[in-house]
Amino acid sequence: MIQTDLNCDMGESYGSYSLGNDQEVIKYVSSVNIACGYHAGDPATMDTTVQLAIKHNVRIGAHPGLPDLNGFGRREMKLTPSEVYQLIVYQVGALNGFVQANGAKLNHVKPHGALYNMAAKDKTIANAIAEAIYHLDTSLTLFGLSNSELTKAGEKLGIPVAHEVFADRTYQADGSLTPRSEPNAVLTSEEAAMTQIDQMIKHQTVTTVDGKTIPLKADTICIHGDNPKAVGFAKQLYQHFISSGIKLGNLS
Amino acid sequence: MIQTDLNCDMGESYGSYSLGNDQEVIKYVSSVNIACGYHAGDPATMDTTVQLAIKHNVRIGAHPGLPDLNGFGRREMKLTPSEVYQLIVYQVGALNGFVQANGAKLNHVKPHGALYNMAAKDKTIANAIAEAIYHLDTSLTLFGLSNSELTKAGEKLGIPVAHEVFADRTYQADGSLTPRSEPNAVLTSEEAAMTQIDQMIKHQTVTTVDGKTIPLKADTICIHGDNPKAVGFAKQLYQHFISSGIKLGNLS
Amino acid sequence: MIQTDLNCDMGESYGSYSLGNDQEVIKYVSSVNIACGYHAGDPATMDTTVQLAIKHNVRIGAHPGLPDLNGFGRREMKLTPSEVYQLIVYQVGALNGFVQANGAKLNHVKPHGALYNMAAKDKTIANAIAEAIYHLDTSLTLFGLSNSELTKAGEKLGIPVAHEVFADRTYQADGSLTPRSEPNAVLTSEEAAMTQIDQMIKHQTVTTVDGKTIPLKADTICIHGDNPKAVGFAKQLYQHFISSGIKLGNLS
Amino acid sequence: MIQTDLNCDMGESYGSYSLGNDQEVIKYVSSVNIACGYHAGDPATMDTTVQLAIKHNVRIGAHPGLPDLNGFGRREMKLTPSEVYQLIVYQVGALNGFVQANGAKLNHVKPHGALYNMAAKDKTIANAIAEAIYHLDTSLTLFGLSNSELTKAGEKLGIPVAHEVFADRTYQADGSLTPRSEPNAVLTSEEAAMTQIDQMIKHQTVTTVDGKTIPLKADTICIHGDNPKAVGFAKQLYQHFISSGIKLGNLS
Repeated sequence: MIQTDLNCDMGESYGSYSLGNDQEVIKYVSSVNIACGYHAGDPATMDTTVQLAIKHNVRIGAHPGLPDLNGFGRREMKLTPSEVYQLIVYQVGALNGFVQANGAKLNHVKPHGALYNMAAKDKTIANAIAEAIYHLDTSLTLFGLSNSELTKAGEKLGIPVAHEVFADRTYQADGSLTPRSEPNAVLTSEEAAMTQIDQMIKHQTVTTVDGKTIPLKADTICIHGDNPKAVGFAKQLYQHFISSGIKLGNLS
Repeated sequence: MIQTDLNCDMGESYGSYSLGNDQEVIKYVSSVNIACGYHAGDPATMDTTVQLAIKHNVRIGAHPGLPDLNGFGRREMKLTPSEVYQLIVYQVGALNGFVQANGAKLNHVKPHGALYNMAAKDKTIANAIAEAIYHLDTSLTLFGLSNSELTKAGEKLGIPVAHEVFADRTYQADGSLTPRSEPNAVLTSEEAAMTQIDQMIKHQTVTTVDGKTIPLKADTICIHGDNPKAVGFAKQLYQHFISSGIKLGNLS
Repeated sequence: MIQTDLNCDMGESYGSYSLGNDQEVIKYVSSVNIACGYHAGDPATMDTTVQLAIKHNVRIGAHPGLPDLNGFGRREMKLTPSEVYQLIVYQVGALNGFVQANGAKLNHVKPHGALYNMAAKDKTIANAIAEAIYHLDTSLTLFGLSNSELTKAGEKLGIPVAHEVFADRTYQADGSLTPRSEPNAVLTSEEAAMTQIDQMIKHQTVTTVDGKTIPLKADTICIHGDNPKAVGFAKQLYQHFISSGIKLGNLS
Repeated sequence: MIQTDLNCDMGESYGSYSLGNDQEVIKYVSSVNIACGYHAGDPATMDTTVQLAIKHNVRIGAHPGLPDLNGFGRREMKLTPSEVYQLIVYQVGALNGFVQANGAKLNHVKPHGALYNMAAKDKTIANAIAEAIYHLDTSLTLFGLSNSELTKAGEKLGIPVAHEVFADRTYQADGSLTPRSEPNAVLTSEEAAMTQIDQMIKHQTVTTVDGKTIPLKADTICIHGDNPKAVGFAKQLYQHFISSGIKLGNLS
């Protein structure tokens, strides 16, 4: 039976500020990426979200970001490789505290926002992230954009890597995402998104914007949790998988 | 042979701001308490300080504080027990990230500043801290003021506890420290401090300000690292121990 | 014609985090208290909220809080009078930057959350706040709990003071608010709230929980903007005032 | 008599962390740029530093930086023009609070670190800064790198502009600073620095690294306050000016 993984960012609330609908979305995913207090999240939110993930039997990942709460980790910062390495160790360590204290096991690490994008293209940033994970725990899986510098860096170090794809984004001839600035960056038809995701999971290929079919590793699919439509889309994908005979990789 | 432990707060620099003389003081102590980024410290400082501790073969502890960098964790905040529990898990987890990534083992946890003082007197704060450590790792030692609510909370949960004493502070008839607001709070003569510390270590008693000898558990002695005289005092204690046949409990 | 003032806290969003329904509530109030970046708010939110206030022709106030974004300024901190004085100057100055840059005039200052409550009871905190305002601009009005240490401190310095009352809170025999821990702290009937507010505005008295009528200065009435029912309650009060012949003190 | 201005960054301490030797350096300069709490500084430091500046009768400027205390505002961040505009208004407003509360007058604004460098080259950042100052108070002087996008942006808006030069940095044929990555970026001989500064002030020209003499506006000279040699260099320049008949532009 074909198996895949649906992942979603979670735990992005902060103090009195609430974000996302974690309680609902978590019903339809198999992995969650929990914010670690730099771009979002705080100790109370992290603790609660880890407990929610345990209750729903999903894989728990750390979702470290840039130290920029006001910009939600979406504004690029020029950091040295050491600074990147250290902010990953700090945040993954902090989340792991809650995972340990709740008797669970950390499964993966997925960088957030600008850090994710920088790591997809910049080899030194990518290496710094992969090395942080490698030094923390060689059994942690690195989640990165499929076919990016980040997944390459993880593979080079020999740690487990999950290539991430997007159901509703289009791809260029070279396998990269069409930039959001382009008019055809997003698949607006849900049918088209389902067709694309099926092809990715079953054939590990994608049809690019110029009509060619190219190979594309698709280990995990990203759902954006801060999107108001996230719950609906997650539920739809979940039901689609059931009817298509695709198994979601929840912990058993 | 009698053995004791000298501990010192370290890693309290932040970004461009330098504090303490860690490189020197560390030569004379057997345990260090490393700031975790809330009252002081940052990822770079934490990484460097963990490496310094490994190089000098001293025990590594986490030194979590209140979320108040501007007040250096010295201003009391009214927190719920959950908030205290969670800020301990977060900070100890973060430091443990660096300990793991550097291939070492975390030994203890000592709360900082206002949190230390609040936990010495307030049972609910004390319990919240002890429970955080208990849930994180039952082999971690809790450092707290000798004979305080904090050490009691740790003992109740059955985790290892180190009773902390001060060489240069005087003690009241009930075993508590003379408040700093009192004129005789501090032993200004180094000879008196050495005599007191000898008595504490060898006999586990102290002579109080009113002249009585009372029992006092003395597992570890605190040196204040941000004091300009810290290096000299640490060195003096260190040499005194050598000449008195007291062994410092470095890792072997 | 009798005139009064309805005030509401605003601009408490932060980065990607949205809080309150400022666009709606502002239609029914005559004064707004804008968060200044310590307990809530950020430069973008402050700028936008000042512009919203100008558009709706309401009085603009600064709403400074404790430096505790994660606790939304609701957790007490032990600060020295100097620290309180300086955090008021900083935050009021920052908000005044946006007021000036948008060509408006700052009208008042109302401390937030724990700072407001501390200032109501603690004379040294109250004096520190009043002095900060006095030194910044003697024409700024200090908003404080009616008949509290804060309003007294302002009156002692001779700056304009607005005594704040609550439509839906009950009062003790000594004129203080019934603590929220008491079962009868809040008037749950809207009719009772309207009756109380009418009495306060028209007669400057209140009927206490033990049935006595005591004098109570009522210069401005507080609406809580982060309450989901805030819009409805504000609108109700607004319409009640119209039908009762009470004029809301908007800028003319 | 020829007149010039020596400026120095100040008030860059934070909480328990001390930086620079403001008390000494201030004796030899005519303008100070005071950190505003984003890259350095806090309310207490700002208040104290404004008072120090008043005592020494020097011009008071705001020194706003990027929101990055841990990186001391030296790490580039990708910000929108609105975000830059708003962080300038916030920080200048906050400092102005202390200036007003101490009965003085704000004279100028000089961006710090990465923000200064970004504004020197990037027209949209430069315009955002100039517009913030323009909207706050058209009489404030904008300090920027001589002949940069920042000074151009200020001149275009018609606000007062001070072209800043460096005594100890070398200049390229196009009037830009030799990047620090180049071996000849800094004049290591003090004699050479004094000769260069004399030429800049008296002739408004500079001799570039390739030996040509080009025009260069030199309204104010920068001293780096966090440099351990700052006091010595400031004193030397100060005495050199006295002996050369150049008047420092202190407030009279």
